[in-house]
Amino acid sequence: MTQQKTWSQRFESALHPAIARFNASIGFDIELIEYDITGSIAHAKMLAKTGIISKQEGEQLVAGLEQIRQEYRLGEFNPGIDAEDIHFAVEHRLTQLVGDAGKKLHTARSRNDQVGTDTRLYLRDQITQIRSQLREFQGVLFNLAADNVETLIPGYTHLQRAQPVSLAHHLLAYFQMVQRDWERLGEIYKRVNISPLGSGALAGTTFPIDRHYTAELLNFDGVYANSMDGVSDRDFAIEFLSASSIIMVHLSRLAEEIILWSSQEFGFVTLLDTCATGSSIMPQKKNPDVPELVRGKTGRVFGHLQGMLVLMKGLPLAYNKDLQDDKEALFDSVKTVKGCLEAMTILLSEGLEFRTSRLAQAVAEDFSNATDVADYLAARGVPFREAYNLVGKVVKTSLAAGKLLKDLSLEEWKELHPAFESDIYDAIAPSQVVAARNSYGGTGFDQVRQALQAAQSQLSGD
Amino acid sequence: MTQQKTWSQRFESALHPAIARFNASIGFDIELIEYDITGSIAHAKMLAKTGIISKQEGEQLVAGLEQIRQEYRLGEFNPGIDAEDIHFAVEHRLTQLVGDAGKKLHTARSRNDQVGTDTRLYLRDQITQIRSQLREFQGVLFNLAADNVETLIPGYTHLQRAQPVSLAHHLLAYFQMVQRDWERLGEIYKRVNISPLGSGALAGTTFPIDRHYTAELLNFDGVYANSMDGVSDRDFAIEFLSASSIIMVHLSRLAEEIILWSSQEFGFVTLLDTCATGSSIMPQKKNPDVPELVRGKTGRVFGHLQGMLVLMKGLPLAYNKDLQDDKEALFDSVKTVKGCLEAMTILLSEGLEFRTSRLAQAVAEDFSNATDVADYLAARGVPFREAYNLVGKVVKTSLAAGKLLKDLSLEEWKELHPAFESDIYDAIAPSQVVAARNSYGGTGFDQVRQALQAAQSQLSGD
Amino acid sequence: MTQQKTWSQRFESALHPAIARFNASIGFDIELIEYDITGSIAHAKMLAKTGIISKQEGEQLVAGLEQIRQEYRLGEFNPGIDAEDIHFAVEHRLTQLVGDAGKKLHTARSRNDQVGTDTRLYLRDQITQIRSQLREFQGVLFNLAADNVETLIPGYTHLQRAQPVSLAHHLLAYFQMVQRDWERLGEIYKRVNISPLGSGALAGTTFPIDRHYTAELLNFDGVYANSMDGVSDRDFAIEFLSASSIIMVHLSRLAEEIILWSSQEFGFVTLLDTCATGSSIMPQKKNPDVPELVRGKTGRVFGHLQGMLVLMKGLPLAYNKDLQDDKEALFDSVKTVKGCLEAMTILLSEGLEFRTSRLAQAVAEDFSNATDVADYLAARGVPFREAYNLVGKVVKTSLAAGKLLKDLSLEEWKELHPAFESDIYDAIAPSQVVAARNSYGGTGFDQVRQALQAAQSQLSGD
Amino acid sequence: MTQQKTWSQRFESALHPAIARFNASIGFDIELIEYDITGSIAHAKMLAKTGIISKQEGEQLVAGLEQIRQEYRLGEFNPGIDAEDIHFAVEHRLTQLVGDAGKKLHTARSRNDQVGTDTRLYLRDQITQIRSQLREFQGVLFNLAADNVETLIPGYTHLQRAQPVSLAHHLLAYFQMVQRDWERLGEIYKRVNISPLGSGALAGTTFPIDRHYTAELLNFDGVYANSMDGVSDRDFAIEFLSASSIIMVHLSRLAEEIILWSSQEFGFVTLLDTCATGSSIMPQKKNPDVPELVRGKTGRVFGHLQGMLVLMKGLPLAYNKDLQDDKEALFDSVKTVKGCLEAMTILLSEGLEFRTSRLAQAVAEDFSNATDVADYLAARGVPFREAYNLVGKVVKTSLAAGKLLKDLSLEEWKELHPAFESDIYDAIAPSQVVAARNSYGGTGFDQVRQALQAAQSQLSGD
Repeated sequence: MTQQKTWSQRFESALHPAIARFNASIGFDIELIEYDITGSIAHAKMLAKTGIISKQEGEQLVAGLEQIRQEYRLGEFNPGIDAEDIHFAVEHRLTQLVGDAGKKLHTARSRNDQVGTDTRLYLRDQITQIRSQLREFQGVLFNLAADNVETLIPGYTHLQRAQPVSLAHHLLAYFQMVQRDWERLGEIYKRVNISPLGSGALAGTTFPIDRHYTAELLNFDGVYANSMDGVSDRDFAIEFLSASSIIMVHLSRLAEEIILWSSQEFGFVTLLDTCATGSSIMPQKKNPDVPELVRGKTGRVFGHLQGMLVLMKGLPLAYNKDLQDDKEALFDSVKTVKGCLEAMTILLSEGLEFRTSRLAQAVAEDFSNATDVADYLAARGVPFREAYNLVGKVVKTSLAAGKLLKDLSLEEWKELHPAFESDIYDAIAPSQVVAARNSYGGTGFDQVRQALQAAQSQLSGD
Repeated sequence: MTQQKTWSQRFESALHPAIARFNASIGFDIELIEYDITGSIAHAKMLAKTGIISKQEGEQLVAGLEQIRQEYRLGEFNPGIDAEDIHFAVEHRLTQLVGDAGKKLHTARSRNDQVGTDTRLYLRDQITQIRSQLREFQGVLFNLAADNVETLIPGYTHLQRAQPVSLAHHLLAYFQMVQRDWERLGEIYKRVNISPLGSGALAGTTFPIDRHYTAELLNFDGVYANSMDGVSDRDFAIEFLSASSIIMVHLSRLAEEIILWSSQEFGFVTLLDTCATGSSIMPQKKNPDVPELVRGKTGRVFGHLQGMLVLMKGLPLAYNKDLQDDKEALFDSVKTVKGCLEAMTILLSEGLEFRTSRLAQAVAEDFSNATDVADYLAARGVPFREAYNLVGKVVKTSLAAGKLLKDLSLEEWKELHPAFESDIYDAIAPSQVVAARNSYGGTGFDQVRQALQAAQSQLSGD
Repeated sequence: MTQQKTWSQRFESALHPAIARFNASIGFDIELIEYDITGSIAHAKMLAKTGIISKQEGEQLVAGLEQIRQEYRLGEFNPGIDAEDIHFAVEHRLTQLVGDAGKKLHTARSRNDQVGTDTRLYLRDQITQIRSQLREFQGVLFNLAADNVETLIPGYTHLQRAQPVSLAHHLLAYFQMVQRDWERLGEIYKRVNISPLGSGALAGTTFPIDRHYTAELLNFDGVYANSMDGVSDRDFAIEFLSASSIIMVHLSRLAEEIILWSSQEFGFVTLLDTCATGSSIMPQKKNPDVPELVRGKTGRVFGHLQGMLVLMKGLPLAYNKDLQDDKEALFDSVKTVKGCLEAMTILLSEGLEFRTSRLAQAVAEDFSNATDVADYLAARGVPFREAYNLVGKVVKTSLAAGKLLKDLSLEEWKELHPAFESDIYDAIAPSQVVAARNSYGGTGFDQVRQALQAAQSQLSGD
Repeated sequence: MTQQKTWSQRFESALHPAIARFNASIGFDIELIEYDITGSIAHAKMLAKTGIISKQEGEQLVAGLEQIRQEYRLGEFNPGIDAEDIHFAVEHRLTQLVGDAGKKLHTARSRNDQVGTDTRLYLRDQITQIRSQLREFQGVLFNLAADNVETLIPGYTHLQRAQPVSLAHHLLAYFQMVQRDWERLGEIYKRVNISPLGSGALAGTTFPIDRHYTAELLNFDGVYANSMDGVSDRDFAIEFLSASSIIMVHLSRLAEEIILWSSQEFGFVTLLDTCATGSSIMPQKKNPDVPELVRGKTGRVFGHLQGMLVLMKGLPLAYNKDLQDDKEALFDSVKTVKGCLEAMTILLSEGLEFRTSRLAQAVAEDFSNATDVADYLAARGVPFREAYNLVGKVVKTSLAAGKLLKDLSLEEWKELHPAFESDIYDAIAPSQVVAARNSYGGTGFDQVRQALQAAQSQLSGD
């Protein structure tokens, strides 16, 4: 511990080395360095504009800060554990570079509003990147759907075959989930992109600062109306982690389906070599590692959300050191969500193929057209609940006889109910079963085509 | 198990009684009964309008459903465990009341879209109520703040006295948190208020239904664009639980402060008898049970959020029975948030009094004006970091001497730095210290008055 | 609010009615009533034994308490919201029944140690019941396993067929998980079954009580060594919720497998009508509601664990009102775990049938014997990694040719590697593949039979 | 991606580079390298002992593995992303070093049992270290307690002064919590220290391995009885994270108290410069960063527990890739718990001082002796509830008159109740109030001295 702490004049002895290590955030907040520099430049410009420091001092500060940015990019600025945190590290280097002016940078500012500013600058960039990844992922879902309007796939409830659907319809369900993710992050962005800079330690400052000017320089959409709220609010981080958790819910569901589909039992998709892995001892294995990892990483993001909520519980106003522990959860969640989105986008766009003939065979060989028989009768005046019960019986007897519904003779149908005519066979053919669900939002091919058009509009919207 | 299950025709033997109990949701989904009836009425009207059932049948269904609503309100409709769920219970009773028409109610509908509709109707009502409670709570915060602009209170960081603030400023920090809660629930409302009705089991329906008509009858803002998404989406519930968790974070922070403030050590507020409780053995005790319970119930809502996320993880499309377990978490969270908001509103409006003289004394007897000394020097050209270091030293020597800053003589000040003049005493008087933080969003009295005006606009906005 | 609060003499005005409702725990702690009475009886006996009250008073208290127990069992004792909590409700009624002696019951006791005692008495009973259910569940797994030693089933990793296994082996994996659950609860029981009674409000009491005597009367294994720890410790509840969460992990895994197995694609089990449910509109459906609900309820228990952890975070010593909110999480978790264990026990013992012929067919038609080919070569001196690579190639060419390994001619084998002989066909027959994994703990039939014997010993152990 | 994947012979094309990055665990499982080498050495020795490989091959393998260990320690072995995971990295290097024998190392083993072995070897070491840290922390608590038997401190319930206690008694409450942590980890250790090695991929192996021999070489206490359980069990990790969460609960409670105690309002402890930090702008500040960070990091460990539970939920047998994501949660939790324990141990042993005179003053100036007045009367035959009510009244009138109980005249006491005599003054003196709570486990000085003796025995136990 050779470096004197910036705050140490009231203190007589140095920190215990182990405590210094425990307190230091430089190990992870280095990730914020460029945001810290950007924020400090805006602060310096404002100090000069308002006359709190001289114009010349302002220029010195900006130049020094830009130089540190360059040093960092060139790998020449590597603050160690002595630096405590990235803010002190930059201020310390700045004072080396520009002398006394460096000591004025922190005028009318506290680390509390500074780190809040850095974190928001970081997060809004990440949100923008994630939203862009969500759009790309939607594009892949859209293209797959557009290619598979007439590909049939069993539709499930309770993982039991329920009614066949268009594969496009199935994929567009995910498109809509992702659409909500994209919208939600857009709303959260608005609450992330508010400037706490100028809140000071907690109460504002005695200097004639201009918070709206720094906000404008940093492209914030507004400024915090209350300084105590400004330094201690972490709603924006919780909201982001919640939205991230919902993204992971969606990805985990799709991941689960791909794992099922690529099993030998389902056999609906073939994983390509570029996106599958093998076993260390079983030579035949081809494993769906990507969706498994995505499913597994879901818990990690849920955990970070929980951790952040726990961190905030019961904290009195205003800033408390606990808040320092918000960053690693954010950083790891951002990394996880981006990684999972990238992997799933690659997997869907170039890592698997649907086995369409096997899918066609699947929908032809089950009782997933039973509802259509009930609907057939209901449309001919039989109360739905009675029709339903009649069909329940015929399913039972057919199962016992090893038959499918399409195997029943017209006599058998008529025996069940006189309303049956020979058009029952058309009514229960898989493609007709799908086509007939032509209600808005349903799987009927016409509906799906309209849904694709609507999706295209959504894709180009903002 | 005397009642035949509605779905039992394909089945030969009845459910095991213990399994029937395990599966049944009637124990809690009875809470949805009126929403279920309302939804079924809209569905019946639509069936009649589109000619799927006759006009007369439609009228019979509506009348029967309204009668069940009345029976329920009169305590005459009490479905038991046999009923499995509220949907079958109502349909069963309806058929008793109106005969064959009752068996047609479920035409072109599934319990999957039905329960989704019920839950959204319930939740949007609850959100509206909670938003109204949030507004009321803001009103109480506002009034307390308006009465206490010039009441000083120590401002803390790290629970150490940092800088004194206006009590109004402190309270308005919570006002702003609640404002975000209110806004957030407004955004979520838009995603809750979308109709899944007509999604069928998962794939839409073969009947010529009109989903936009039922949505209109039920005052939904839109309809789900994809039926598989419509029956399996629970994003809206997760979002609500996340927003509820953030509300609880805010309440837990205020609760923590009230607990601190009402301790003998702080002594900043007196709890009134209407909102405090005693001990069963210690006659002197007056306990802040309300904020303690609020703080304690925070974990409960976080837990429900986690539970719902876990429930959704990895579920394949479309509906799965797991989804039935979403309701109790929602219901209990709604009840908890509403209960906590009500209790905190009462506590702040009629359950405590600030001890203003004690607060005034507190801010006069500490070093929370030390930043102002540094600012004083910095405003006179001393680089901030140097000024800060000088003041650190004087704090150390004063502490050792048992003095406060106001007790230093002008000579002592000048010894420290020649820039000090006799106006230093004004500069460090508590009310001046507060007044001087007149930056936007700061605690300066002018700022606080402007913040109150802005808050009044927010209160009347929507 | 007509009833005067027991603690109200220091107070001038009554509680606000809404606050009284908010504070009251009687709505749920009624579940503890018999434990509360039992605990009070022990306390009364101790007071008499130590001479703190007279022998006669002691007898009056015991008689009065037993009478309240009877009244409760007969449905004649129904304390309302006025009662605040079950402790006051019982004390109040007791004083009605036995007069002044009733007012002495609370001597040398506080609600803080009282409720801690009640909760531990409750929880240790529940743990005993759950352990008994775990044993019953193990018994069902054991029986199923014993019946299916030679039934083959595909073994999976990554949900890809890996190596066939004995169905008994698969089931015994769950047997071992449940064994750990049983052991874990046994260890936790020891920490639950410690008496806090006599800790007083927080500091012990001035009366000459005998804590070891009440502990003995209540069959506690020990007493808390520190009174402040005694009233504020909730480790035992967290531990129980953690163990419950692990139980739910295990049940959710088995539930997932049963859902998969009962799908048309796997077709490994048939759900019997007693344990399956239908759809409200799809007459052919037979849904695995039980395992789906079990899987869904997993999140609920995880959520309660998290809620309890959050509740405890950062609470200063000793008792805080937050602790009141521990009960509903415990009660609901107990109910959930017991319900899920019962349902899964029924499902496995009488709700499903394995389709053994289909299982036999499954293992005959895949490449899950590929490792055995590599092992065959390795056993003949080929380095394992080389053997593995050779087999990888033959799998690839066989897949392309639409062949299985058993379809290759001896020439083809020899071409691959000269070490192959005609015994390769035996080596890759499914039953031999299983039999050959005869390492300790492996799926070889001999091993499985030994494992069954060991399991039988575990079942009868304690 | 230049390195050929070890499993790639069945595969025609290489992994997509982004997918390779996504799948790779080498970035974090490098932490396991020495455990991996140790496990492989045992495996190699067993292969040689059982004749599966030659004695010479066994020696080559052991020598090669030891060489890799040396290379790693010297910083010369740095596997990159190409290596996929630490297991392949070591095997690859081994084959470079010893040639064909290296290719035999993986005989009769899978990465599934290998990584399970590594993780258990790692975790048992960490548990041992943490238990040792817990003991050290207990030692510090013990010493502080031993020095402060007669130091009085207000005892709180609801953060209201309840009854004064011995500071030693307060500290020993934490001693007992930590004692449970230590015991709990000891129990978990037994379930961690079970060898999965030899479970193979999931089903055991066809080779005549000796699992008990490898278990013995690696000092395991037993072997998994079921291979499918062996490769997929993560109970031990959940249990560890649960125990870690409870440790954090305890630390967070003590942290909260230290934060309160070091506030100006409480003023019970002084933080020393070695363990406190300053503000970047407020020169007077001395912040309790250590306990704040500990409190904040609590959420992080809770989050990891939740994440691990979520990861495991609903995973079918046996190994799934999701399981790879268990490690970072474990590693970070271990690091966090160890860091927090170290920091709190330093803080308590050399970072703070109790302000005993201020504590003495505190307990003399409140109503925390009120229970003793009620007990005084109850001991003289007044029913407790009546005594309690009388004292409630006198507290109320004293508060109104600005008096403490000790300020009442004997006449006033007798007016309240004739049983009062002049010994009431002794009875309510703080040290007597504490001394009188001499029930087992109470704060009476005799009890505390006995508790210290018992604690000393616990400290030396195992």
